[in-house]
Formats: sequence, C-alpha cells, structure tokens
Amino acid sequence: MSKGKAAGNVVFIGSKPVMSYVLACITQLNEGNQKLILKARGRAISRAVDTAEIIRHRFVTDAVIKEIIISTEQIERSEGGTANVSAIEITISKKK
Amino acid sequence: MSKGKAAGNVVFIGSKPVMSYVLACITQLNEGNQKLILKARGRAISRAVDTAEIIRHRFVTDAVIKEIIISTEQIERSEGGTANVSAIEITISKKK
Repeated sequence: MSKGKAAGNVVFIGSKPVMSYVLACITQLNEGNQKLILKARGRAISRAVDTAEIIRHRFVTDAVIKEIIISTEQIERSEGGTANVSAIEITISKKK
Repeated sequence: MSKGKAAGNVVFIGSKPVMSYVLACITQLNEGNQKLILKARGRAISRAVDTAEIIRHRFVTDAVIKEIIISTEQIERSEGGTANVSAIEITISKKK
C-alpha cells in the first residue's frame, strides 16, 4: 500500500486517537477534495468507522458514505510465514 | 435491538472469540437461510469484519457480502447521560 496523498486522498487509520484522523480528513476535504478513502486493518477497523461517523455527523454534514469494501490482506510475519488480517475501505464524498 | 433468530437471521457480534460467531453463522446458513445480518458496535466492529471474511473465504465460498451499513447509536450510560457509539451491519447472502 502506498501512503497518504500520493495515492489519491487516502487516509490510513492506525492506532492514534480518532480525532487526529478526523482532523486529517477534514483538512483534505477543505482543500477541495470531493472524495476521500479511509483505509484500516485489524483492530483499527472500528476506529475507521468512528472517524467516518464523526466526520459526517459533526463536522462535514454534506459528506456521505459512498462505498464500504471489506477484504483480507496477507501480512508478512517478522518470524517468517504470513498472517491474514481483515481490512476496510470507506469512501466518503461530498454532496455536490 | 432484538436478539437472534426472531429478528430475521441477525447475529450479534460481541466480545467472544471470532470462531464462535463464525460457527453461529455457518449453522444459520446451513439451516437454509439465504441471508444473514451481522451486527456489531464499538470495538466489536473489527470482529464482525473478521467473521464475514472468514466465512466467505474459508467456509461458505458461495457467500457474498451484499451490503455494509455503518451508523451511530446512542447508548444510555449507567451514570446517566448518553454516549455515541459506532455500529456496523454486514449483510451476507448465498449465491443462488
């Protein structure tokens, strides 16, 4: 996976507090981006859902959830072998 | 929210191990149900995604993710007042 803006308005949700991701998303939307993709894996999935819900209910009320995709990704373990981890992609877009 | 079968093939995902929910879902699908809804709130959201992914990749390969809805629910706090919590509903159905 590539990082941040280069990948076309993708915000990767990790283990920071929800509000730091909310802020990152609002910044992107205010810069004129009409579309935003939140990506998360494993336990960060619920944080991605929180982020999307807080954005559209509290801060950017003209934003809508366009699409939600779930998938399984393979991760290389440091001790060798691979592990499966669930992932989510939430696409948010602004109403025109 | 109502519980279990009465609500039309709804499985509520909580804090048990993922495999117990996978088993509950497989049982429902094998009883002839063509549709199944997984519901989860808060931190159990990532477990619901895990459950759906394990079912369709490992056990019921003719199952597809039909719809994913995220929302915000209000919960009554025991010390009074309400708290907002994110929720997810994943609809799984079998290919005909």
